[in-house]
Amino acid sequence: MGSFQVRTDLALEARESISEADSELHGVSVEEYYREKEDVRVTKVSIDTKNGAKAMGKPMGIYVTMEAPAMAESDEDYHREISKCIAEELLALIPESDREQNVMVVGLGNREVTADALGPQTVDNLFITRHIVKEYGKAAYNCSKMNLLSALEPGVMARTGMETSEIVKGVVKETEPDILIVVDALAARSTKRLNRTIQITNTGIQPGSGVGNHRNALTQQSLGIPVIAIGIPTVVDSATIVMDALEKLLEEEKGLDAVKLMSRQRPPFPELNNMYMTGKDIDAVIKRISFTVSEGINIAMEMRME
Amino acid sequence: MGSFQVRTDLALEARESISEADSELHGVSVEEYYREKEDVRVTKVSIDTKNGAKAMGKPMGIYVTMEAPAMAESDEDYHREISKCIAEELLALIPESDREQNVMVVGLGNREVTADALGPQTVDNLFITRHIVKEYGKAAYNCSKMNLLSALEPGVMARTGMETSEIVKGVVKETEPDILIVVDALAARSTKRLNRTIQITNTGIQPGSGVGNHRNALTQQSLGIPVIAIGIPTVVDSATIVMDALEKLLEEEKGLDAVKLMSRQRPPFPELNNMYMTGKDIDAVIKRISFTVSEGINIAMEMRME
Amino acid sequence: MGSFQVRTDLALEARESISEADSELHGVSVEEYYREKEDVRVTKVSIDTKNGAKAMGKPMGIYVTMEAPAMAESDEDYHREISKCIAEELLALIPESDREQNVMVVGLGNREVTADALGPQTVDNLFITRHIVKEYGKAAYNCSKMNLLSALEPGVMARTGMETSEIVKGVVKETEPDILIVVDALAARSTKRLNRTIQITNTGIQPGSGVGNHRNALTQQSLGIPVIAIGIPTVVDSATIVMDALEKLLEEEKGLDAVKLMSRQRPPFPELNNMYMTGKDIDAVIKRISFTVSEGINIAMEMRME
Amino acid sequence: MGSFQVRTDLALEARESISEADSELHGVSVEEYYREKEDVRVTKVSIDTKNGAKAMGKPMGIYVTMEAPAMAESDEDYHREISKCIAEELLALIPESDREQNVMVVGLGNREVTADALGPQTVDNLFITRHIVKEYGKAAYNCSKMNLLSALEPGVMARTGMETSEIVKGVVKETEPDILIVVDALAARSTKRLNRTIQITNTGIQPGSGVGNHRNALTQQSLGIPVIAIGIPTVVDSATIVMDALEKLLEEEKGLDAVKLMSRQRPPFPELNNMYMTGKDIDAVIKRISFTVSEGINIAMEMRME
Repeated sequence: MGSFQVRTDLALEARESISEADSELHGVSVEEYYREKEDVRVTKVSIDTKNGAKAMGKPMGIYVTMEAPAMAESDEDYHREISKCIAEELLALIPESDREQNVMVVGLGNREVTADALGPQTVDNLFITRHIVKEYGKAAYNCSKMNLLSALEPGVMARTGMETSEIVKGVVKETEPDILIVVDALAARSTKRLNRTIQITNTGIQPGSGVGNHRNALTQQSLGIPVIAIGIPTVVDSATIVMDALEKLLEEEKGLDAVKLMSRQRPPFPELNNMYMTGKDIDAVIKRISFTVSEGINIAMEMRME
Repeated sequence: MGSFQVRTDLALEARESISEADSELHGVSVEEYYREKEDVRVTKVSIDTKNGAKAMGKPMGIYVTMEAPAMAESDEDYHREISKCIAEELLALIPESDREQNVMVVGLGNREVTADALGPQTVDNLFITRHIVKEYGKAAYNCSKMNLLSALEPGVMARTGMETSEIVKGVVKETEPDILIVVDALAARSTKRLNRTIQITNTGIQPGSGVGNHRNALTQQSLGIPVIAIGIPTVVDSATIVMDALEKLLEEEKGLDAVKLMSRQRPPFPELNNMYMTGKDIDAVIKRISFTVSEGINIAMEMRME
Repeated sequence: MGSFQVRTDLALEARESISEADSELHGVSVEEYYREKEDVRVTKVSIDTKNGAKAMGKPMGIYVTMEAPAMAESDEDYHREISKCIAEELLALIPESDREQNVMVVGLGNREVTADALGPQTVDNLFITRHIVKEYGKAAYNCSKMNLLSALEPGVMARTGMETSEIVKGVVKETEPDILIVVDALAARSTKRLNRTIQITNTGIQPGSGVGNHRNALTQQSLGIPVIAIGIPTVVDSATIVMDALEKLLEEEKGLDAVKLMSRQRPPFPELNNMYMTGKDIDAVIKRISFTVSEGINIAMEMRME
Repeated sequence: MGSFQVRTDLALEARESISEADSELHGVSVEEYYREKEDVRVTKVSIDTKNGAKAMGKPMGIYVTMEAPAMAESDEDYHREISKCIAEELLALIPESDREQNVMVVGLGNREVTADALGPQTVDNLFITRHIVKEYGKAAYNCSKMNLLSALEPGVMARTGMETSEIVKGVVKETEPDILIVVDALAARSTKRLNRTIQITNTGIQPGSGVGNHRNALTQQSLGIPVIAIGIPTVVDSATIVMDALEKLLEEEKGLDAVKLMSRQRPPFPELNNMYMTGKDIDAVIKRISFTVSEGINIAMEMRME
């Protein structure tokens, strides 16, 4: 890709931008399978070495990407299927445990900005149990085992004056969950992945990624418990769009190289900083997919108990 | 501009894309002045002939554009000044009348999508008087003259199943206002105009313009009363961004013409359809500028009475 | 009830306050049945004469009341059953027709006040089809018959400066629906009916009823088409609460009559004017029951077509 | 008051229910003054002994109550005056300090329930500075001293699964503010105090008070830093209303005692549990008074610096 860094939060897209030979060399392995029933293509990218992490621009860990083309549509039954997929892939990344788990979900992002509201809206639909079990015991749900689910919407720094990581760290220390699930809106490189791709990773959240960049690291290293991040791209970076269009336009022109052209600009397109691109029906789409994610988490909480 | 149509809702930008000689020829006149106190540059574009309308791609009428660079910032005093400017320019476009006026404000757009919520949020802060005066008379406000202000938020077609124009037409016929003021978010060609430019025009709203295209015509012709439209660009069209970037990149390359390149794509960039680009702090910005517009209308209502 | 008028929007409660002999005499007939499967008690009060209307303090027509004790709870399956009941009872009140119907739903009330948001929130979840069928024909839904559904959220007078009836009348004249369904939050006399009772009536909406009194009449007489009103009590009038408590307290005291005591106050409890009483979990309850009502309407639209 | 406990969050009202002689005896002192300019009556109740705390049913500390009859109205200038009063009274309760203060505001309550949204809406309008000063230094505001303001909206337990006190404790430990200001909606005994009275106290928040009871203690003892609570009554308890009405009704009846009547019910009016009473224009009122409180805090932050 040369000196022009195209931004993507998806390991899948980062992987596409380096050659296969290169990736094997660097300890990046890729596994793919197709869930026919749900028309979902799953790609599991494992970054196993520091070299791989460097080549990919992403920390070591496992990145599961589910591509569900119909997810932007409003078919309720289909969304239920996707929720089940999410539940299964999520559980596969959560360390096994015999005992009940105390799980906290953190909904990152800004509720007031539609494209950034995936996290907060996911929190709205969770089946929260921690306070009930704490108060009345598992008997309240007529069961002998019951995971505890709590949720936090930390808000954005401009509103709180605090880093998201400060808020989350404090609350984690105080309430001692076993596992953290972080939900956030992502940026993709390709418009065709918008609202159609779910990334689940055990690497947590790193500074500088996400729609609004509203946090420092939320990782196992920083918090002391496993951190699973669920992300869906809801925006495309403006510079990315320009790059894509340019490449397409210049395909047939000889002697021109989009990357070379772009990299002449330093920084590239300053007027595009702090801008993003998103779809016009984004409000309905976010409402639907946040519900699908929250149902995925709800189902996972129950499955673990069976 | 050749065969590639760059979309803008601003007459100011449409004017920039044709040569001065051309515009005079076609009956388009331009008047400019600078309001030093408020650091606002006002440009008044008058399209006086059908030829001019065709050349500009905009209907005949007067388009006042106020460029207020600091409007995207949060200085409260400055916003008060801008509100006064809006009030003055608005009144200049409203036909004189000896008697009190019954004015209806229509807030177009989708409250749920931040970049499209300018209209609905403007309605939130208006000083509504019609129902009070109807019920208790002008005495309720201790004054001998009192304009009646009412407001409507028609909502978007996906939610109502009706064209905005159907709803507005029906309510106008029933409540018989003298003047309609329509507030809407616009699309601009240049990112530097985003949230910094106010367009006030006596041509009303035409199909196909605006962020969400949520209506048919709202014009004096269709409604039978003067229709003033107040618009602020909150988004930039994606294709526009690509075009701008391309032009910049290719400036130094010989033998390449961005427009020619773009127009080879038919339609240009299908994947950019139904997408728009906006700023990351759009929620705070919309909150501020919608308040500024509503205050402008509130002040205009009072000024007319003095 | 003597000279102290206890306010209720429920015909069921108005009926309880007059003796059986009286009601028969006056042309008020009552039919009751129990839907065992859904644990719903249905009471159909028919007011057939002007005398009856006077005795009941309600206009002539049919009032179907569904008492669903579990409706305030969050059982999803149960709510689906209630939605079906609503659909059936709703259709029973809509005049038969061979051809497709153009139905408009009006969501009355104030979205910003939780207890008054039943109407607006119901509109949020409707399956709106009118604009699609108008644009693409029934083929868009792969069917040979398709009702048209549109929806309007007129807002409250303090925000619009217009009577709700003015807005609705205007839009009805312009878009010419065959049937109007009006959804509104009601006031009940008894706290035990709160959020557990659904009233469906073919008398439309009369001035002076409802939580916020935000309208004049919306009736077949005023609009020229059948008007079905769906209402759920979400608040209890403050004076009612006092009256109820007083009666209970004084039951055992001899020589005291609550009504007599209350009626000495003229007007009774001025400090309670413009106040209402509601439950603390009202936000979650309104979200649930508005969804149940919107699903009821959605199902009714489909059933008619089968 | 006998055995029937009338609930109030206002020390002023608790004080009214015990005799003057009693209160002096118990170490409760009262100081009153009238701010003529703003038409605000200020009452300062100091509970200095454990006996006093027991008699009053409130913890030891200082309770400043500002009665501002016009606060429920929409006069903007008046609200600015009230904000200044709040700032002054607030500062009087904050321990003096030479150095800049790191202040955190916690907005308690449920944003989704209008009457309970005072805290969250207050947070919306604060001038948050902590993150700016941390990143860019005081120079960012062109001043040599600058208090740091941060804010937290912890949400309600049903949504988070956590006690508010757990969340606040965790964040306080992590971000180490010097002072905590907690804003919450209160319950009053008298409808005439609704939205017209502001209580500022250095006792923090105790379990069991407030509209939604959404927390355990937030006090200097539990958090280790001074906790100032700002509260405004937005609801009246239902049982209180009944009690008030009853007393009024029975005033002239001999041989009847409202308290005796009420206390026969055990528990009194079970159907009123979890219900509250509030005004019909509550949404507009909360919007206004939350802005007034946030401005009060903003002004206090600046004043300390002068």
